[in-house]
Amino acid sequence: MSVRIGKQTVKLENAPVITETASIVGVKEGKGPLKDTFDRILTDDTLGEKSWEKSESALQRQTALLALEKARLKQSDINYILAGDLLNQCVGAHYSVRDLDIPFLGLYGACSTMTESMSVGGMMVDGGYADYAMCLTSSHFCSSERQFRNPLEYGGQRTPSAQWTVTGAGCAVLSSKGSGPRITYVTTGKVIDKGVTDISNMGAAMAPAAIDTLIAHFRDTGARPDDYDMIATGDLGIIGSDILEELMLDEGFDIRENHRDCGKMIYEIEEQDVHAGGSGCGCCGSVFCGYIYRELKRHNLKKVLLMATGALMNPMVVEQGESIPAIAHAIVIEN
Amino acid sequence: MSVRIGKQTVKLENAPVITETASIVGVKEGKGPLKDTFDRILTDDTLGEKSWEKSESALQRQTALLALEKARLKQSDINYILAGDLLNQCVGAHYSVRDLDIPFLGLYGACSTMTESMSVGGMMVDGGYADYAMCLTSSHFCSSERQFRNPLEYGGQRTPSAQWTVTGAGCAVLSSKGSGPRITYVTTGKVIDKGVTDISNMGAAMAPAAIDTLIAHFRDTGARPDDYDMIATGDLGIIGSDILEELMLDEGFDIRENHRDCGKMIYEIEEQDVHAGGSGCGCCGSVFCGYIYRELKRHNLKKVLLMATGALMNPMVVEQGESIPAIAHAIVIEN
Repeated sequence: MSVRIGKQTVKLENAPVITETASIVGVKEGKGPLKDTFDRILTDDTLGEKSWEKSESALQRQTALLALEKARLKQSDINYILAGDLLNQCVGAHYSVRDLDIPFLGLYGACSTMTESMSVGGMMVDGGYADYAMCLTSSHFCSSERQFRNPLEYGGQRTPSAQWTVTGAGCAVLSSKGSGPRITYVTTGKVIDKGVTDISNMGAAMAPAAIDTLIAHFRDTGARPDDYDMIATGDLGIIGSDILEELMLDEGFDIRENHRDCGKMIYEIEEQDVHAGGSGCGCCGSVFCGYIYRELKRHNLKKVLLMATGALMNPMVVEQGESIPAIAHAIVIEN
Repeated sequence: MSVRIGKQTVKLENAPVITETASIVGVKEGKGPLKDTFDRILTDDTLGEKSWEKSESALQRQTALLALEKARLKQSDINYILAGDLLNQCVGAHYSVRDLDIPFLGLYGACSTMTESMSVGGMMVDGGYADYAMCLTSSHFCSSERQFRNPLEYGGQRTPSAQWTVTGAGCAVLSSKGSGPRITYVTTGKVIDKGVTDISNMGAAMAPAAIDTLIAHFRDTGARPDDYDMIATGDLGIIGSDILEELMLDEGFDIRENHRDCGKMIYEIEEQDVHAGGSGCGCCGSVFCGYIYRELKRHNLKKVLLMATGALMNPMVVEQGESIPAIAHAIVIEN
């Protein structure tokens, strides 16, 4: 059952339980500050595969299977798997799920995919369309560099505003029953394009979408920033986070106290030389399914607003002179 | 409210109404047998844009706006727009909706996107999460050729099994109220990969997914082929349709009488020199939103199973030696 609240938000009255999560990250992410919160850290980012695309699929598949194992569920228990990634035609997801015997819905929201899948999956469980739904996403530094920028072998220099695509995957299992952190609200974003054209500054391109969705969420629900223990954005990084905090202040919402960004949390920014911070679907995916979910389970966090943001361009259309549209989807998770 | 029926199907008890549709197609499609059923036929497939990607976005945007106009609805009436296309990072959809003031959910199901969006949108309207949802998709021959095969200027020869990507878009507006054809069942497909590696034979790659979903639908609902006036597949073309009909017969289901394929219907196959028939998200999109919807409204069709199929590879992974996974999503539409 649902209640529509305002223009962009629904309240999930049955409030699906996030019954289990799994997170697997790469070598570099396994040396960052959140290293103890991931389920598994790769020792080899190739995963023994012969191409980076195959490595990413293997990473995503391992994460899905680990989530099933941790949740003590069989594939046949799951009604839907909702997945996506950054690769052309979402091949990370398609080749990862083809060995799974689970009905599949493919999503593309760029780096917003984790909360897009939890939004749609949350509604499907809440509405009784599914007893269990799996929400899955990944990114891989090496497949993303080749596809969006340059092959690694080219040795291109990174600008100071560039973000480092997280090698990682996250999978959340939603359930209509049981206890645990629950998804209580879903605020769906609009596509926002403020004219940013710098493909090496995703934070600036995505921040306006984050602002738009966050204001919509506060407007629709009447909540205030301090109603949340944490307002976690997906991968705005240093530049995008600064823009978000400053412009939200102009709008009358001071989120500086409890705003955290997964892209800033996952690395030691300077020591690990990641410039503006982490990015990629797997950034929000692995940090939510690792650190944030653990803190919710331990009751160190009681109410979290999770909002992943995605930049929706591809390199070709930017070369054609287009600016970069972006989107942000927010969900509320409560204990 | 929903009732789960079997492993892959839900019955939509509130049965969302397809309150209006819009379809726009290209010059070639406007010379085919269905030319009188489309809302608008382009006189220039560029739509006055400077790149094929921008042309496709413009096509999709025009179709969405036309659907709103025909339905006498404002953008602010629509709770969600669910859209996708074949382009890398779904830029057809993202650049088409950025000027719309409507919450957006991006989907990727390759050529299955029309029924994927109607499945998810249908559940969201059925469950009360939306009063109105728009389901939108497109494809464009010229952007697809460049991206998946060769730029047009290369003049590559097409194999006999190749299909012709439809230049076209379809938009269906789902509503919780009113009268008209309704979505009553949703059967969600699994990713199926039977090892086909020929990128010029999408029909053969997609047919096994169509078979899998169709059998699941009959198994879950207890329906038989002759319960439907039409079993419409999206774009299996000549080769895929033959495989589907033959292998379904082996499974004990004779669909030969009432199976139609949008990819076969949209062109005069031989005269228009399209080899194995039409394909692309816009094939099922424009044929459903044009011809099939018109026949439902005129009560010439009473009960239709609509099942779009998608091939989920990209050219790079096929070059890496991968086979082609595929998926099919089915919905039942009843008067």
